[in-house]
Amino acid sequence: MSTIPSESSSAPSSVRILLDRVSDGVANTVHDVVSVEEPMELQISKKDGLTQTISVTMRTPGQDFELALGYLLCEGVIRDASDVTDVRYCGPPSPDKGYQNVVQVELAPTTDLDLDRLQRNFYTTSSCGVCGKTSIEAIDAPLSETVESNYRIEHDILRTLPDRLHSWQTDFQRTGGLHAAATVDGSGEIQRVREDVGRHNAVDKLIGSYVYESGAPLRNLGLLLSGRAGFELVQKAAMASMPFIASIGPPSNLAIELADERNITLIGFLRESGYNVYTSHGALA
Amino acid sequence: MSTIPSESSSAPSSVRILLDRVSDGVANTVHDVVSVEEPMELQISKKDGLTQTISVTMRTPGQDFELALGYLLCEGVIRDASDVTDVRYCGPPSPDKGYQNVVQVELAPTTDLDLDRLQRNFYTTSSCGVCGKTSIEAIDAPLSETVESNYRIEHDILRTLPDRLHSWQTDFQRTGGLHAAATVDGSGEIQRVREDVGRHNAVDKLIGSYVYESGAPLRNLGLLLSGRAGFELVQKAAMASMPFIASIGPPSNLAIELADERNITLIGFLRESGYNVYTSHGALA
Repeated sequence: MSTIPSESSSAPSSVRILLDRVSDGVANTVHDVVSVEEPMELQISKKDGLTQTISVTMRTPGQDFELALGYLLCEGVIRDASDVTDVRYCGPPSPDKGYQNVVQVELAPTTDLDLDRLQRNFYTTSSCGVCGKTSIEAIDAPLSETVESNYRIEHDILRTLPDRLHSWQTDFQRTGGLHAAATVDGSGEIQRVREDVGRHNAVDKLIGSYVYESGAPLRNLGLLLSGRAGFELVQKAAMASMPFIASIGPPSNLAIELADERNITLIGFLRESGYNVYTSHGALA
Repeated sequence: MSTIPSESSSAPSSVRILLDRVSDGVANTVHDVVSVEEPMELQISKKDGLTQTISVTMRTPGQDFELALGYLLCEGVIRDASDVTDVRYCGPPSPDKGYQNVVQVELAPTTDLDLDRLQRNFYTTSSCGVCGKTSIEAIDAPLSETVESNYRIEHDILRTLPDRLHSWQTDFQRTGGLHAAATVDGSGEIQRVREDVGRHNAVDKLIGSYVYESGAPLRNLGLLLSGRAGFELVQKAAMASMPFIASIGPPSNLAIELADERNITLIGFLRESGYNVYTSHGALA
């Protein structure tokens, strides 16, 4: 397999509904659109082995295979495309809506599958878990590494990114309900945008879309986020070796700490008029 | 135990940091505050039994016991306070920050503990999981019931809620990084507000804060959300028998479906100038 298989099902990211809009005390029945949110179950398997469900996430249908691959990369299950032999839907679309909600990723026989770590949220123990460790040690240490990159972006280009993202976000403009994640090159060009009702899913889809491209392309791209930059989003960027994150919203304290430890430059509250530099590791030209 | 034990650790929801603020091309080093995000591990146990970790969530420290109890109620592990014999922190605060990040809930011996259902995301199977079922059946059916309530709120009061919530959200005003969830009575009074970097956590904290109060008080209160109303937030409201949800942001299609099936009135895009009525089940006077 040298590319992500195309998804055969049609998967609109929004649907039309009827609702009552109350404006200045007067109710009118109008057509409107809302974002689609559906569960996606992710299963992994090996040829001739058992199939194992590893997550169920609420997501906006579309780019489901990218979502699956990005999630697996960000969780450390796969490192690149050589770890994957097939991506497919399981079974028929659900009878009520036509979506397909179960994705199976078949791993290469040589892929090391550490189910214990994946199941870390569900282990039986009488010890203290995240007690006594620093927070980042407890939840990230085995996963990501320091990012090395020559990525640079200029101040004057940075401030144009919110407008560029907004013009890409057609779905956002329609429903107001989707988070966006985008890759940005050093000249400020937006390379790819992915959207979802879940901010984590948008980043997983984006990162997953690059899994079949050679030469670790994300090492030379920045990550642009329409919302906040929480710890888990920085962790995903670190897993994908992305050197730069710019978010329209603010980061958390732990997001800043992790970005700093992984050599990631982290910008927040990005506006045309300015922005905050939370960590600086050479990406600002 | 007749009330939630008080938390002894100090847990600021935001911290002061130094950053570079770039404005009109000029960088200045300034003090600012960011929201705190830390992992919380939730363990459940029975006297003389094993302790079991059931989740690790990234949350803003504070009201951790409410978060634990609300999460367990919304997951169907506990129904009310009679299912709980103790809530406590495990072990010492983490050495770097002084937070306590592991909460143990001891369940009453009579509490039925269905770990299989809790672990539904991690089961080994060769079947299709959420294939072939409708989405709501697959992820909610065994949990919530239709909400019966006499809760009513007037149009003219509804439009005042965004302002009332905003004036409560002192943390939001400081960092711009926290989601809020609030209970509102029929006269529009905000009863309680909980905030968190995670929208789910804010709702769990809010619902958990009522677990020790008698007579199912949430059956007669509305839920006000600072952001979007996704499926999982409606599911939590349904588990707590809340008859009314008003969100500043939009709902998703599946959130609307679930609200409709559970008799919950669902309002979105709530502003002083108006709002959208997505489902109507008698709560609008």
